[in-house]
This record gives sequence, structure tokens and C-alpha cells, in this order.
Amino acid sequence: MTRNIRSAYEKLLTRTKDLIVLSTAQSIIHWDMETMMPPKAVEQRSQQLALLSRISHKMSTAPEIGKLLNTILTSPQHDTLSEVEKRNIHLIKKSYDEQTALPEKLVAETAKQQAITVNTWKKAKKQRNFAKLKPELEKLVTLNKQAAQILMQVKETTTPYDALLDEYEPKMTASTIEATFNNLRQGLTALLEKIQNSHNQPDTSILRIRMPTEKQRKIAQALTQTLSYDTITPAAGGRIDETEHPFTSGYYDDVRITTHYHLDNYTSAIFSVLHETGHAIYEQNLNTEWKYQPAGSPCSFGIHESQSRLYENIIGRSKEFWTHMLPKLKQISAPVLANVSLSQFVHAINKVEPSKIRIEADEVTYNLHVIIRFQIEKDLFADKIRVSELPEIWSQKYKEQIGVNIENDSEGVMQDTHWPSGLFGYFPTYALGNIYSGQLIATLSKDIQDWRSQLAQGKLEKIRVWLTKNVHSQGDLYDPADLIKRVTGKSLDAEPYLKYLREKYSTLYGF
Amino acid sequence: MTRNIRSAYEKLLTRTKDLIVLSTAQSIIHWDMETMMPPKAVEQRSQQLALLSRISHKMSTAPEIGKLLNTILTSPQHDTLSEVEKRNIHLIKKSYDEQTALPEKLVAETAKQQAITVNTWKKAKKQRNFAKLKPELEKLVTLNKQAAQILMQVKETTTPYDALLDEYEPKMTASTIEATFNNLRQGLTALLEKIQNSHNQPDTSILRIRMPTEKQRKIAQALTQTLSYDTITPAAGGRIDETEHPFTSGYYDDVRITTHYHLDNYTSAIFSVLHETGHAIYEQNLNTEWKYQPAGSPCSFGIHESQSRLYENIIGRSKEFWTHMLPKLKQISAPVLANVSLSQFVHAINKVEPSKIRIEADEVTYNLHVIIRFQIEKDLFADKIRVSELPEIWSQKYKEQIGVNIENDSEGVMQDTHWPSGLFGYFPTYALGNIYSGQLIATLSKDIQDWRSQLAQGKLEKIRVWLTKNVHSQGDLYDPADLIKRVTGKSLDAEPYLKYLREKYSTLYGF
Repeated sequence: MTRNIRSAYEKLLTRTKDLIVLSTAQSIIHWDMETMMPPKAVEQRSQQLALLSRISHKMSTAPEIGKLLNTILTSPQHDTLSEVEKRNIHLIKKSYDEQTALPEKLVAETAKQQAITVNTWKKAKKQRNFAKLKPELEKLVTLNKQAAQILMQVKETTTPYDALLDEYEPKMTASTIEATFNNLRQGLTALLEKIQNSHNQPDTSILRIRMPTEKQRKIAQALTQTLSYDTITPAAGGRIDETEHPFTSGYYDDVRITTHYHLDNYTSAIFSVLHETGHAIYEQNLNTEWKYQPAGSPCSFGIHESQSRLYENIIGRSKEFWTHMLPKLKQISAPVLANVSLSQFVHAINKVEPSKIRIEADEVTYNLHVIIRFQIEKDLFADKIRVSELPEIWSQKYKEQIGVNIENDSEGVMQDTHWPSGLFGYFPTYALGNIYSGQLIATLSKDIQDWRSQLAQGKLEKIRVWLTKNVHSQGDLYDPADLIKRVTGKSLDAEPYLKYLREKYSTLYGF
Repeated sequence: MTRNIRSAYEKLLTRTKDLIVLSTAQSIIHWDMETMMPPKAVEQRSQQLALLSRISHKMSTAPEIGKLLNTILTSPQHDTLSEVEKRNIHLIKKSYDEQTALPEKLVAETAKQQAITVNTWKKAKKQRNFAKLKPELEKLVTLNKQAAQILMQVKETTTPYDALLDEYEPKMTASTIEATFNNLRQGLTALLEKIQNSHNQPDTSILRIRMPTEKQRKIAQALTQTLSYDTITPAAGGRIDETEHPFTSGYYDDVRITTHYHLDNYTSAIFSVLHETGHAIYEQNLNTEWKYQPAGSPCSFGIHESQSRLYENIIGRSKEFWTHMLPKLKQISAPVLANVSLSQFVHAINKVEPSKIRIEADEVTYNLHVIIRFQIEKDLFADKIRVSELPEIWSQKYKEQIGVNIENDSEGVMQDTHWPSGLFGYFPTYALGNIYSGQLIATLSKDIQDWRSQLAQGKLEKIRVWLTKNVHSQGDLYDPADLIKRVTGKSLDAEPYLKYLREKYSTLYGF
């Protein structure tokens, strides 16, 4: 009997390994499309991607997987499996049940409608014309509602929207998020008011100094080296390229980041490089023992974002980090930043100001953007609002909650690609990432009490090792809520993040 | 009945399209490995490549293909199929029969032994130690002999070696090659003697001028633009990158070349770029109506090489081409080549000298290297010589036929990667390519009588259009011998190539 369950488990893992290896090949093809592909190749590339996803879908829904799972789960020897083995089976079963539950026709139709909606969105955004996007987005929402209804049964969630949330942040529910986001929003709003009332506002003109791309590349190199993300040695497992929108792509020994160098906004690339490096370090430090196993993957989108935001903001916008880095930045960019002082620079990169565009938002107002999206998504999938009402509701919420006037839908509801891409339930993970990063840094501060002074000396190794031990190497062994509980001893809680912000900004803005 | 054969044909084509699309995805992954991949990713990459070839093998040997072929071939409506449709079926059947004839165990063992032998070859070459390579190469040859025995039955060739030749140059036989190579060798040897006896030897010191990589990149750009291989506009279907060994990779709208810039040998990159561009232009100008069909592929390795050698040598080393290009070269490289005259430059890039290394050989002696490899391969697969005798036979032939002394096996039998990579029957296609290029240019000269004066004005469009009409757009509609016969009216014949060489070199060397 033990041999029987063992053999079934090994067969299951072999199939899963193939699926994971295939997905890493798909990643390379995607990455190439964004970075290297000659422009004429668009049609060929869509053929390649469509074929690979058909192959992947066929492999991941093979009835043999269901049989092997059944053999294992009904075996009296089931308890002889280790914790990791049980987790692997849980993750394989979850994915198999979900993928087989969705009718192939619905999957294909949704994929097609996504492509159409993204294309329409690009044009509609250019023309500032939501009416153009509306009919396509309506179709896409309808298809996603159908999928959510099915997934709700499989995942046993109480609402369709919770089933969507579970795709990105397993086991997370809208009610938990709502309660936490309410606390977060109150704290942020109060903090924002204090910052806005402060007379000590930063001079951001030093961020507009023109910086040639070649120098910005060297700065990016210096940053990744400081963070120990290797893109240059003969043992490198990373690389940096340039794309319209920065992203991270890869698995274990091949994790690549991209950035965009803006001539008149050199800190844009600095923070996108720090952000993406945070993602990359997570992927590169997953547990090598579980490579090619489901447990050897990142935990969730929120946990992933906690790592990128921790490196981008908590580390990357701290006074201590720039105590070490500003001299290097000055040296590389010489002579343009020669007269900039440390406090001047740190205050400038932490300028807080309510704005219309999420991806340009500062650390304090960023989550307000995300919270609005969550509120709207939740109501959309509860049939409380219709697609046609999105622009009005969006503008109203931005006025009330962030205090800005949306003048056209391109800087409003059409600013992000997520909804036209069919990513519903994804936005909350951005704010969850920030909240997690606050909880993690609070715990890290207890274990490494001098982490800030280490940072000031450019020493990030202990921080990285702590994150690897507690987060990266845990892979997908736990659902995100369980991981956070194990590491910090606490449930999801916005307070540590708010505390971190209050301490930082009261010092910077003097209140 | 017609509907039945139609439906079977469409199903077959759909499967074949998937296989071709998959192979283009594999190409991208290969290209990335050679150009972009972080060094740490070697193990992951081998997993990806192995998985994709397993998937490809499974798809291409699916029993359903055999059934569809049978339905079509036994149908009374078979004659209603068009020429292209029949060719597609022929090519699908050929590939299916060959792939299903080889036992999976033999294929897997050969793939493994190839990887081992290449690795061993790299070390043995460094250590100048053939004894190290010998046992692995012996195993590889044995496996290839087994495969050749099986393929001989399927392909109905008279010898195992002819079955290997057919893999690269369909329907070509060793006896045809031998007769043609004998003529070629006699002509080349006589020409070489005249060149060596000439007192008018070129000054090649101008080829050793140090040229910074950045300038060499600009030269490469100017060359590809002149040849209409687009790597820069928003409609580009190509790109140039840098690798240890130059190669071309791609299909239709995405065909990429690589080169290697040597600081002290700037013409190396010039001629590798011209060579690879010749390959790329072929791939980009295949028949778009047959895209994703077997007929929409290049004809053979020899025909492919005819295009690269035609652009590299017949065009690229001609006085006329440099009449147009030398001023541009001088401008880009200014001031280092300012005092070089056209005749001085053209004579230098056509320096003829017997040497040990094939890839460094000039136009006249190059084929002598290939002929020796053919002679050895043929005898090896006829069991007339053993792997252990290779070094001795190699050295003896180089002494007799090229007049050089091989001092160690690394500059002898171990110089090329082909045999350790299991490529037996491949070498002859290099010389066949040259022979074809001679036959093609003789015919082109009749159709475009002023092609040389057009070249002198930098006008390559008519030449390209002629090659596309007669070669590129014919795809794989005919076997190579048939294609050459249709285009030139003649069978395989070394004489036009010899004539081209005699005319060119008698002018250059004054005899």
C-alpha cells in the first residue's frame, strides 16, 4: 500500500514538474515579446502563446491527474505523507478541480474577450472615450461573473467575488479585507491631513534634473548590486532590460527584471528597479529542495508585493539606505547632484500629494487608490453597480476619498489595464502587500534591532537572510494568512504599517 | 468522398501547423539561451528544452497522423489534390515514417550521448587530447549507425550514409556528391596552384587595424540595411545580437542573426553578418501563402547555404559591392581606413592561403576542407575506417589535399563541433551550397545582365527579387536537385562555380 501511494505521488509530481517547466518556458516567450521581439512578429508570437497555453491546459486537466489524486487521497497510507507532500497534493488538487470545473468554451471565450477588451481599452484610453470600452468590458465582466459562479462552488466561498480574490490571495475574503482597509483608510486619511498641513514641504526640483540613460543604467546596476541581485557575474541568475512598463519574470535561477529610464525623472527607474528587485529576490530564494514542486512557488500576489514594496519603500525610501547610496548616486551622476544634501534628497523622494494616477502615487496615498478599486470591484460582482456606472462612481469616490477631481476617464477608470485584462480581485493584493510589509518589518525589527544602522552602511545581507528564512524559502507551504501568522504571530493588521508611516512622515514633515 | 479527403487534409494541416508553431517557440528558447540567458539558468534551460522536444516528439508521432495520411493516400479522390497539397502530404509522411521508425529508446539514448560527447569534446579540444574524446565518439557513431540502418529501410537508400545525407539534403547520394566533388577538387587545386605562384599577393595588414566594437556595430547595421534585412524600423522582422559563434534563427516575420565582433579582425564580423543575412533573407521571403505548412519551409541545408554564401562571397567579396560600401565603411570607421584603395581592400579580403581551420578558410580552399570531411564520413559509415583512426587519416588527407601539417588534433579532427554533436552527413551541404551558388549566379547573370553594375551602385533589390522568385518563395516544394534543375536547367554541376572563381581570381592575382 505504501508503495502504491508513493508511486502515485511520484507520478503526480512528474506531471506537475512538466507543467511548471512548461510555464517557465512560456515566461521566456512572454519576456522575449516585451523586450527583444522584432515588431513584425506579433502574429507569430500570438500563435506560439496560444499553442503553449492549449498544451498547458491539456496537460493540467488530464484525467490521469484526477485518478492519481484519488488514489492518494483515498489511501489508508495518506497520513504517512509529510507536511510538504500533503501541501503539494492540496495545491495540485486545488488547481485541478478549478481548471476542470471551468468549461473549455468559457475559458476560450474569456481569453478571446480579454484580448479584444485590452485592444479596445488601448484605443478608448487614447481617445478618452469610455463609451467605446463599455460594451466590451460588459461582455468581459459577464464572462468573469460566470466563471466566478462556478469557482465559488469549487472553492466553497460565500460570494463570487471571494472566489476571484482566492485566485490571487488564497483564502482571503472581502469581509476581512473590508475591515482591514477601513482601518487603513482612516489611518492614512488622518496622516495625510497632518502632512498636508505641514509647513515643511520638500523641494522636488532635484528630482527633475536631466539624467542620461547611460548613467541611469549604471545607477540601476549599483542598486541591484547593493541588494545582491546579481545581473553581471558569471554566476548571475538575473538581468535588467528596458520596457514600457517595468516587470519581473522568472523562476529560481533565471529571474529577470525590466525598468524604464525617463530622462527627466531619474528616480522613476530607481524605485522601479528596487521594486522589481524585491520581486526577483523572492523568486530567486525560494526553497531549492522544492524546485519544480507546487510548494516551491511564491505564496500569493500579496506576499509577493510585500517583498517588492519592502525593498522599494521601507528600505528604498529610508534615510539610512540613502546614507549609503547617495554618495554612489552622486558619483555616478556627477556633477549634477553635487549640492544635494541627504535630508533634502530623502524628503524629496518622500513627497506626499494626492493625485489621480495610482502608479505615480506616493507611499501614503497609494493605498487610497487601491481601496477605491476594491470597493468598486466588490459591488460590481455583487451586482450592486453596472459597468456603465463605473466612471461616475469612480470620480465620486476619488473626490470623496482622495480629494481630487477626475476630468476625463483616461485619468480615471481607464487608467489601469487590470479590468480590461480580466484581472478582477487582483487590486486588493497591492494594499495587502503594503500591510504585510508593515507587519514583517515590525517583526524583523525585533530580530535585527540594528537593521537601520546596518542599512546605513550598505549592509543588506542580514535583512535578506531574515526574509529568505521567514518568507522566501517558505514558498507556498502556507496560505498567506497562515504565513503571516507564523512569522509575525498576528493576523492581518494594518496598524504596524500605519505606525511605520506615522513615525517616518512625522519626522520628515515635522509634526 | 471529396469532403472526406478534404477534412482529413485539413486535420492533418492543423496538426502540422501546431508542430511548426511549437518548433518556432523552441527556436526562441534556443536563441535566448545563446544570447540573453543568465549563466546560472543552464539546468532550468535544459529542462525546458527537453520537455519541449518530448512534447514535439509525441505530437509528431501521434497515431492519428498515420490514420489521416492513410485516409488521404488510399482515397480515390487523391488526384484532386493540388501540387502543393501533395507536396505537404509527402513531407508529412516522410517525417512521420522516419520519426515513428526510430525506437524511442534509441532517440533518447542518442540525445543523451550527444550531450555527453559535446561536453567531452569541449574538454578534449582544450587539452588537445583525442584519446579523451574517442570512447564517447565511438558510442555516438555506433548509435548513429543504428539509426542510419533503420532510416535506410524507410528512405530506401542504398547505403546507411545516404540515409544520413537525406536528412540534410533530401535525395542527395554519396555517389553524386563524390563525382561532383572530384571535379570541384581538381578545379580548385589547379586554381590554387596558379594563385600561389602569382607574384601579385595582397597586403592584408589593413585587415588587422583595430576597430572598436561600437563602430563594428554601425558597420553591421549599414550592411544589413544595404541588403534590406530590416532590424531597426517599426516594421522590422529581424535583429542582430552577439554570440561566440554567429548563427541565424527564426521563421518568416521573426528571423534573428548573431555575429561576433573581433577587435583586431573587423572583417570577420563583416562577412559573418553578410553570411547570416543571406540565411535570414531566405527565411523571411518564404512563400507567405504556405506559412505554417511543410511546403513553406526552406528546401535543404545546401540550398540554405547557397543563399548565405552567395551574399557573403559572390556579392560580399566582389569589387562591385565594395565600390558602393567602402566609402561607407571609411566614413563609419574614420579615420583609420582613409588611405585604403578599393583594389587594395578587395584584394586583401580575397587573400587565398591553405590553412588548417575550415571556418577561417578563404573561398578557394574552403571546399577542400569540406571534401576531406565527406571522404572520411563516408568511409566511417561504410565501416572502412574506425573512430580511433580519425586523427591519422585526417592529418594525412590535410597533408595530401591541402598541403598543411596538422600538429595537434585540436586544430585537426577536433576543430568542428559537428561530429561530437552527432551531425553526420551534414558537412557536404557546405560545399553543395557553394556549388549551387555558382549555378544560381550563372543563371541570374543571364536574367539580370547588369547585376554587377547595379551592385556597384548599392542596388541589390533586383538580385533579391530574383532569388526570392526562384529560390526563397519556392519553399520546400521541390527536392534540392529538382529545384536547381528547374531554376538553372542543369543538374548538380561544379563547373559554373569553378568558372566564377577562375574569372575572379585570375583578375585579382593577374594570371
